[in-house]
Amino acid sequence: MPEYKAPLRDLKFVTEEVLGIHDHYAKLSGAEDATPDMIDAILEEGAKFAERVLSPLNQVGDQQGCQFKDGQVTTPEGFKEAYQQYVEGGWPSLSHSPEMGGQGLPESLGMMVTELVATSNWAWSMYPGLSHGAMNTLEQHGTEEQKQAYLTKLVSGEWTGTMCLTEPHCGTDLGMLKTKAVPNENGSYAITGTKIFISAGEHDMADNIVHIVLARLPDAPEGTKGISLFIVPKFKVTEAGEVGERNQVACGSIEHKMGIHGNATCVMNFDGAEGFLIGPPNKGLNCMFTFMNTARLGTALQGLAHAEWAYQNSLAYAKDRLQMRSLTGAKAPDKAADPIIVHPDVRKMLLTQKAFAEGGRALIHYCSILVDTVKTGSDAEKEEAETLLSLLTPIAKAFLTETGFEAANQGLQIFGGHGYIADWGMEQNVRDSRISMLYEGTTGIQALDLLGRKVLMTQGATLKTFTKVIHKFCKANSSEKSIAHLIKPLAELNKEWGDITLKVGMKAMKNRDEVGAASVDYCMYSGYVTLAYLWARMALVAKQKLNEGTSEEAFYKAKMQTATFYFERILPRTKAHAQMMLSGASSLMEMDEDQFFLR
Amino acid sequence: MPEYKAPLRDLKFVTEEVLGIHDHYAKLSGAEDATPDMIDAILEEGAKFAERVLSPLNQVGDQQGCQFKDGQVTTPEGFKEAYQQYVEGGWPSLSHSPEMGGQGLPESLGMMVTELVATSNWAWSMYPGLSHGAMNTLEQHGTEEQKQAYLTKLVSGEWTGTMCLTEPHCGTDLGMLKTKAVPNENGSYAITGTKIFISAGEHDMADNIVHIVLARLPDAPEGTKGISLFIVPKFKVTEAGEVGERNQVACGSIEHKMGIHGNATCVMNFDGAEGFLIGPPNKGLNCMFTFMNTARLGTALQGLAHAEWAYQNSLAYAKDRLQMRSLTGAKAPDKAADPIIVHPDVRKMLLTQKAFAEGGRALIHYCSILVDTVKTGSDAEKEEAETLLSLLTPIAKAFLTETGFEAANQGLQIFGGHGYIADWGMEQNVRDSRISMLYEGTTGIQALDLLGRKVLMTQGATLKTFTKVIHKFCKANSSEKSIAHLIKPLAELNKEWGDITLKVGMKAMKNRDEVGAASVDYCMYSGYVTLAYLWARMALVAKQKLNEGTSEEAFYKAKMQTATFYFERILPRTKAHAQMMLSGASSLMEMDEDQFFLR
Repeated sequence: MPEYKAPLRDLKFVTEEVLGIHDHYAKLSGAEDATPDMIDAILEEGAKFAERVLSPLNQVGDQQGCQFKDGQVTTPEGFKEAYQQYVEGGWPSLSHSPEMGGQGLPESLGMMVTELVATSNWAWSMYPGLSHGAMNTLEQHGTEEQKQAYLTKLVSGEWTGTMCLTEPHCGTDLGMLKTKAVPNENGSYAITGTKIFISAGEHDMADNIVHIVLARLPDAPEGTKGISLFIVPKFKVTEAGEVGERNQVACGSIEHKMGIHGNATCVMNFDGAEGFLIGPPNKGLNCMFTFMNTARLGTALQGLAHAEWAYQNSLAYAKDRLQMRSLTGAKAPDKAADPIIVHPDVRKMLLTQKAFAEGGRALIHYCSILVDTVKTGSDAEKEEAETLLSLLTPIAKAFLTETGFEAANQGLQIFGGHGYIADWGMEQNVRDSRISMLYEGTTGIQALDLLGRKVLMTQGATLKTFTKVIHKFCKANSSEKSIAHLIKPLAELNKEWGDITLKVGMKAMKNRDEVGAASVDYCMYSGYVTLAYLWARMALVAKQKLNEGTSEEAFYKAKMQTATFYFERILPRTKAHAQMMLSGASSLMEMDEDQFFLR
Repeated sequence: MPEYKAPLRDLKFVTEEVLGIHDHYAKLSGAEDATPDMIDAILEEGAKFAERVLSPLNQVGDQQGCQFKDGQVTTPEGFKEAYQQYVEGGWPSLSHSPEMGGQGLPESLGMMVTELVATSNWAWSMYPGLSHGAMNTLEQHGTEEQKQAYLTKLVSGEWTGTMCLTEPHCGTDLGMLKTKAVPNENGSYAITGTKIFISAGEHDMADNIVHIVLARLPDAPEGTKGISLFIVPKFKVTEAGEVGERNQVACGSIEHKMGIHGNATCVMNFDGAEGFLIGPPNKGLNCMFTFMNTARLGTALQGLAHAEWAYQNSLAYAKDRLQMRSLTGAKAPDKAADPIIVHPDVRKMLLTQKAFAEGGRALIHYCSILVDTVKTGSDAEKEEAETLLSLLTPIAKAFLTETGFEAANQGLQIFGGHGYIADWGMEQNVRDSRISMLYEGTTGIQALDLLGRKVLMTQGATLKTFTKVIHKFCKANSSEKSIAHLIKPLAELNKEWGDITLKVGMKAMKNRDEVGAASVDYCMYSGYVTLAYLWARMALVAKQKLNEGTSEEAFYKAKMQTATFYFERILPRTKAHAQMMLSGASSLMEMDEDQFFLR
């Protein structure tokens, strides 16, 4: 049976020792309660819940899946009960505002708990995950009345939320959406249309479901500038704030899909359902960006989750499975064969997973600390944090999900033929992870957002904010001999990043297709550099601890070794990406459409 | 509904125009019947069977899977009938010896048909695929009596075959296998043990199943030198050659697995089953190599199959799906949005699939022509062909399955969220393809075979045989201006391949772990160079046809463009592989086992 152990030591290393979360909270307005003791207590509890309640349901969720009958969705055995425990534990309210019944703890602390929950059972974690997105949208754009009616119930966890964007003919291209919102006399709207791929759109875990829906007003301009945002509850809410009569929204079917079987992916039919406008008319997409950025970081986390899960389980197998002798002579002569962890290529796969999981952890929590600052920092702090976050969000989403899928596949590969068999859970982990490169904007869309909107549209200013951070770090540590093998290549890469950007930018001025032709390689390149920066920071801390003397020598040594591995065995991929993206668009664009299939 | 169209034009391009199959058959002993007309007729019929009979069953096979009850396996609806048609069409006998009832056509012609069959429905194609392996083993190592009793029935297709190697505790490490063979008084053996992962081990498609089983004689030496090979029929065969009483071998269960649901993966229990020795005692593994090489090429084909299938279906979707406008302005202004094939990154994914599918096709048929020559060529021809094949088989197996999985994933990616939904078939294609990097030796095992056994153990002689071929080709075409952008980098890479080999070899002399540390990168590097050579050859032919003037200008232009794409957008990956493999083993081997999991 696959298992999950919450990596609390590593999480503390990243957040406390590398990212200095205690200093951050000390300065952060409203983070008074997030004391070291409190954080420890919360993480201990979160770990127990993830390990004992959610992890055992992960395989059950895959095997049973969600069942659909007569408009009702039944979640897998135990899912509902686990959600009850989650609500009773007060988890939904962790990082939400006290006025709404929340605990007012920092978003970044919420993200630490979410990491544990998400890794132990991704499909389950999507139910509260979607609620969190809906809550953020309501918190930022809802009226006081709307907040009292809906947000308080979401914060308490009594109700859950969804985000209804996609329609059959449009996912990426939301400008094409057709769902209509016609004003009723009472100030509400009648919402009519079909939404697809609605995660957690219908289920049996909560008393009500609050849908956040994109739709068009009758007089709306065409395209993305004519989209408004609405609240559409599954059950209407009475004056007293209780669940009332059924609204005209129903689940038409659920999808049969590759993975995340425990989460219901619903077709939602709105048939004149009563809805309420959130935010200004025709500004729905702008309002939605709040959600989208949270959701993108949440999906980036999925990459880390599957990499971590794969690593834990394939490492256990690699130590246990006996097969062949080491090329340098028997390492376990008393056994019939050596454990496969002695083989260099198995180690390469394990270390790749480790480097992506631990590096991904650093990136996720680095970003979520920026989210705190955006929320409550001073103006100057806020501006820098916003800039960095706007750059790092598409990188984290695309890069961590791509490498998460890679790590999940390596986990399966380490099991050999057994990895293909359902019992071991490794193939489920691959299937579950595959969605992460698709939803909340595909890798291609993230890459266009990064290169087109974030980098080129700001004339490189956004990028420069981050390369300066890296530059400063390199400069400050240029005399550290024990990490010189990391600092030097990082400084070079950081410079190359700027140079390449300039070259791509020049090409793009002549031909806009150069942006799309370079974007995915550019995004992956950026991800490798970003992780190199974080690995160098982790190595620096490890080295300092080793110099000071520590009882955890092995832990810090492993950090140094993993950093070295990352630089030697992963980072050379940037060479290929650089050359490919600079080769230009012509090899992609020259072929006539009709020539693609002549065979 | 996903579809498959047999790429006959492209198959002819590769086999006739690039690889000169007609000249090859003209010289090949025993290939008199393989006239151009005969080939065309066979391929036309094969295409019809693949497109009309097998392709529609591909999704059915995945959805229904195989059912197991009381020791019996029921294959998905239509599988049995399709097999009957296959037998009636005489397909199993195509490339087998006339003395055994075969048609005596070349192996390479069989491979062309197999490509069509395999691409249309991989899970189904494994049933005859395993038979083919068993037939080759019997043909080469069986006694005349064994051939008459078993081989003739396999050739006719009345019976099918399996290969029983793996046991629960050993897959790669066959030296550990425990299945026993105790001599009976009548010259047969009593076989006892458990085999797992036996594809097509039990099913309802044929009257009898001939298992080829690895087992140990009582006095056998330990390890791989004490393994013998046995025939164990499901039903004993009577004197008259008919199906007799049930043998003591039974299917204990079938695996629930990630993909290839249409093929039964069986646990086979041998409980004193009657078996017959094939080949000399204790030489079973040597005899099995015959099968393994065929099987590895057959699995390499799976990579091509999933790449081709992914390409066909995602191309159709990319032309049809409307989403966003081209970055350079609307291309279909009359429509709500442009078809996604206008977007550079979508084109990059399509062209990657195309380059791998068409390049893979060239590699597969290049290898299968070598198989012909090994079988019936002159001594000198035979020797060179054997050398090339020994080098190219692990490359083809590892590289084509890895890139096949990549292409399958890109196919899914082009569909966006829809790719994750079962209906479209793209996620099945990914799941089905995933096994190909595991069975018949994982990628890691192929890579060790390539670098350790084939390249270093021969002091580079085997590699040199192939790099000479490439060198000659580059030299002969060094003045071809229109393909100079391919020939020049190919010649450089070819030289670098030798240089890198030398460097890795030097390191390996000091530390054997360097072999395992470099092997997978070395293998992938080798694959990219091999495909570059074949793409250059294809471009050369295309250029010649364009110069001569042709009614198929678009077809040949697309070949030129795909070759250029491959060199500009894929080949730079060699840079990363080269640097990674030369970085040495230390970053993989330094970490203590216990340090891997401290978190």
